[in-house]
Amino acid sequence: MITDLSDIRWLTGFSGSHAWLVIHVNQMFLITDGRYTEQARAEIEAQQANVDVIECRTQAAMIATTKSLIHGASALQFQDSHISYQLFCSLQSEIGASLIPLDTSSKFLRRIKDDDEIRIIESACHIADQALAQCRGLLVQGLSEADIRDELDYTMRKLGADGPSYDTIVASGPINAARPHHHPTATKIDNGHTVIIDVGALVSGYHSDMTRSFVIGPMSAEQSEFYEAVQTAQQAGVATCRPGVLASEVDAACRKVLFEAGLDQYFTHGTGHGVGLLIHEEPFINSSATAILQPGDVVTVEPGLYRGGFGGFRVEDLVVITEHGCRILNTSPKDPTCPPLQLTT
Amino acid sequence: MITDLSDIRWLTGFSGSHAWLVIHVNQMFLITDGRYTEQARAEIEAQQANVDVIECRTQAAMIATTKSLIHGASALQFQDSHISYQLFCSLQSEIGASLIPLDTSSKFLRRIKDDDEIRIIESACHIADQALAQCRGLLVQGLSEADIRDELDYTMRKLGADGPSYDTIVASGPINAARPHHHPTATKIDNGHTVIIDVGALVSGYHSDMTRSFVIGPMSAEQSEFYEAVQTAQQAGVATCRPGVLASEVDAACRKVLFEAGLDQYFTHGTGHGVGLLIHEEPFINSSATAILQPGDVVTVEPGLYRGGFGGFRVEDLVVITEHGCRILNTSPKDPTCPPLQLTT
Repeated sequence: MITDLSDIRWLTGFSGSHAWLVIHVNQMFLITDGRYTEQARAEIEAQQANVDVIECRTQAAMIATTKSLIHGASALQFQDSHISYQLFCSLQSEIGASLIPLDTSSKFLRRIKDDDEIRIIESACHIADQALAQCRGLLVQGLSEADIRDELDYTMRKLGADGPSYDTIVASGPINAARPHHHPTATKIDNGHTVIIDVGALVSGYHSDMTRSFVIGPMSAEQSEFYEAVQTAQQAGVATCRPGVLASEVDAACRKVLFEAGLDQYFTHGTGHGVGLLIHEEPFINSSATAILQPGDVVTVEPGLYRGGFGGFRVEDLVVITEHGCRILNTSPKDPTCPPLQLTT
Repeated sequence: MITDLSDIRWLTGFSGSHAWLVIHVNQMFLITDGRYTEQARAEIEAQQANVDVIECRTQAAMIATTKSLIHGASALQFQDSHISYQLFCSLQSEIGASLIPLDTSSKFLRRIKDDDEIRIIESACHIADQALAQCRGLLVQGLSEADIRDELDYTMRKLGADGPSYDTIVASGPINAARPHHHPTATKIDNGHTVIIDVGALVSGYHSDMTRSFVIGPMSAEQSEFYEAVQTAQQAGVATCRPGVLASEVDAACRKVLFEAGLDQYFTHGTGHGVGLLIHEEPFINSSATAILQPGDVVTVEPGLYRGGFGGFRVEDLVVITEHGCRILNTSPKDPTCPPLQLTT
């Protein structure tokens, strides 16, 4: 029983927000509600998947349907990270079969991307690259964080994206740019600000993810020091990405550069994560990550430095692990400099 | 232990994507990761909530912190619908206290909206109303579903929304408009099409939700018959909304009109749902719903008719239950007629 909607999409093509997939004797059954029945049949046909669609209106009906589908089976394997404790209890009391968590080897079916998937992700990267190139000049027009976000999102759609692949981040100045996951506000981008732009595009369900950082007007010595450290750390991380490497080694490579620069206390998050049908998925890259990188892994490398009162910088590329190393999927330049504000009259 | 992020936002002001809230001896502790520590402190201060923020990097650290916070307690109450079976098992083996699901009375803390919340939701409704008024004329310009969606989303942000409150639906023609939750495509809106637009705005974390339906060019007799039935059903549903009424009665009122019109087989989803910090929340309105409407409930009333080869119509208002009835929060007109395509040269 598959309840992770991204796994369901990967296995069947179905992109709706509510379904279970029951796999029994080499046959797949998608259980969903009336909002999605027709869409599910069309998407499954488009992917040439062999899946029966069953419509149910309530969770009780979904459980009863599952029970009848697995009639005679002694056990039902389920995704223990993608099922609530409440649903587990309901299944346990109704289903008449042992419930067994799927083992780890089945948990990350989607992790290794094939060539078609990498092509889609790369096209999503290119859309974000182009959108940033088109909107970068707006940084010195006296606009707000939210204004820049609005233009980036609109531009990505005009370039063919279904939308942003996550809430686009535009974080500016000594307070907001010190927050790694800042939500854009009416704060106006001003001279001397550090500005972090974290932007990706959604294409056919696949995500891209990229961050660039900027300084408006002349860079201070401290801004140069911080930016140089982040960029060097990011390059060191990317240089570590190849098959057979522990994900924690990529994190360590970034952290080592920042430690040597005396700035590692300002790097307050992990170095990266896998990207695919979810924006955050396996393999995660942090100091305790045990995944071993493999060809077809698509991961971010995104060290950052954040200090309240100063602001922050993050530099992030999306890379695909290749046979002997990795290939960077986005192409936006990393020059952080911007001219001073050029207010239109 | 609160793990529903919407409940955490409601209780503390924290709007990030990862946190647990532990409440012990009248003190609240927010456990989150380094991406969100500074943001959490600022949001909690802005809401004047009395919450300590604790930073943890891993789930294991979050569990250990929870254990130390509740030291001496014999039981930990948790939200069984908002915790995975995997996390439940980890807590059970580590926490050293009995795990007890919160009872139903505590499950829907956020259901009844106060005046401030209703004001915010109403402002979100007005933004969607204005955006639809500004973009409606585009329906006859030969644009695609996705184009109309892009303009609606951009316009809502320019009117002050943080963004759309869900994936805006623009569904046009005999196939797409027959799907209640269609995702906008490059399909061009054409003469004779039924068009469903389902659009809401996000303001300060609160959602709005509204649907209007249109016909491009002269309406056929069948289109008129279907639209009239949907609109009458929707009015009947709204007329039923008052304190003390079972949610299923609102559903029945809509369904009765469509049954009498001989069209009820084309109404394939529930009648509505609560709206607040989530776009879909308690109380749900369908044939088996047992909630009793109360003043301060904010719910949608949204019957629809869908038939492959014909298309579809849905009419949806967001209403707040008042002391003696209900008040409709959005004001978009319900006239479905549009002129024929007026292509610009």
